[in-house]
Amino acid sequence: MNKKAVLLLSGGLDSATTLAIAKSHGFDVYALSFRYGQRHQVELKAAQLLAKSMGVHEHKIAEIDLRLFGGSALTDSLEVPKDRDAKTMGEGIPITYVPARNTIFLSFALAWAEVLKAYDIFIGVNALDYSGYPDCRPEFIAQFEKTANLATAYGVENNSHITIHTPLISLSKAQIIQEGVRLGVEYMHTISCYDPSLEGEACGRCDACQLRKKGFMEAGITDPTKYMRAL
Amino acid sequence: MNKKAVLLLSGGLDSATTLAIAKSHGFDVYALSFRYGQRHQVELKAAQLLAKSMGVHEHKIAEIDLRLFGGSALTDSLEVPKDRDAKTMGEGIPITYVPARNTIFLSFALAWAEVLKAYDIFIGVNALDYSGYPDCRPEFIAQFEKTANLATAYGVENNSHITIHTPLISLSKAQIIQEGVRLGVEYMHTISCYDPSLEGEACGRCDACQLRKKGFMEAGITDPTKYMRAL
Repeated sequence: MNKKAVLLLSGGLDSATTLAIAKSHGFDVYALSFRYGQRHQVELKAAQLLAKSMGVHEHKIAEIDLRLFGGSALTDSLEVPKDRDAKTMGEGIPITYVPARNTIFLSFALAWAEVLKAYDIFIGVNALDYSGYPDCRPEFIAQFEKTANLATAYGVENNSHITIHTPLISLSKAQIIQEGVRLGVEYMHTISCYDPSLEGEACGRCDACQLRKKGFMEAGITDPTKYMRAL
Repeated sequence: MNKKAVLLLSGGLDSATTLAIAKSHGFDVYALSFRYGQRHQVELKAAQLLAKSMGVHEHKIAEIDLRLFGGSALTDSLEVPKDRDAKTMGEGIPITYVPARNTIFLSFALAWAEVLKAYDIFIGVNALDYSGYPDCRPEFIAQFEKTANLATAYGVENNSHITIHTPLISLSKAQIIQEGVRLGVEYMHTISCYDPSLEGEACGRCDACQLRKKGFMEAGITDPTKYMRAL
């Protein structure tokens, strides 16, 4: 029997690649997505499609409306920044940061992991997000892992070690794409854009689109993303 | 201007007392409750009443349906244990434990705290729960606090210290009640029962009811709880 793993699946490029990696390591994957009031809800369709085509064991979508708190361009009426250059992108924490989002997502993953008796959780954070989002940094993940091991009955009773896997954390976007292509990820079904059309076409101009385009370019792989118009 | 604090308010005896303590320390309290699929949803009415009568600055109820995962007598069709003696209660982790619940609740509190720029979070965990629930232990709270300080933009940008306050952690139920009475908490409006009637009458027999009754008895204070029938 394969080991079970809970995986956070957004429908984006990173989580799709993480899913391929978890499967290549022989895990039965239980994928968890969130309808959290994100303006790019169309990513959930991508998540469902990926979960099906990539053969996850089970896929759940948790409903948690983070618009209750606001404070981010992804959940509030604030505007998603466009056409920022690389230098600006690297400065400070962007307005697309959602307060405590990865802490919340990992907490839910932990709850499901406990019910499943799964000791492995996968999250597709990586080095590029790292510069801007505090909850994508290795030190945050390491600290959350310690918390997880004290937080749960199955951790305490069995003295078993819950591991938060971050296979992308030290990879560049280009390296992630190369690894994903090697493992057969169909990136045309993934959505990275923060501000897509209702049909799921990417804006091509937000930070996420720019990082993604640059990644495909540097990887030397044709970008299969559907953009709103020729850009 | 008072300092802001986010407080987890269940509508039970412990969180009501914690609220009184936070206010006595001069905090403007932002109370957060959860509709998480608990069978004792009537506690939310108690939370609303308490929030109003005790003068919180704002009260939000987050909708997060943990029945998605199940695994607990509080969110699943499992039966709530009744009439357990003190010895049995002290052994192992009870079926009323909800997987990763306090990790999830504290994550949401952290999200709101970040939006409010509040550096103080209150949670009414205490020593009696401590024996059974892993996420009520001081070492869990200390670890979550470390995670919180790495998880958020406002923590990182301002290098400010987020504190998780647990004023009840080393108190017995009787001591909690005595402190609450001193601060004017109206315990008749609080609900501790895991399996109350739709009208909010307590069963008198679950672990929570038994601990509460014992607390009032030991404190020498008349128990104002409405029970289902004379017990």
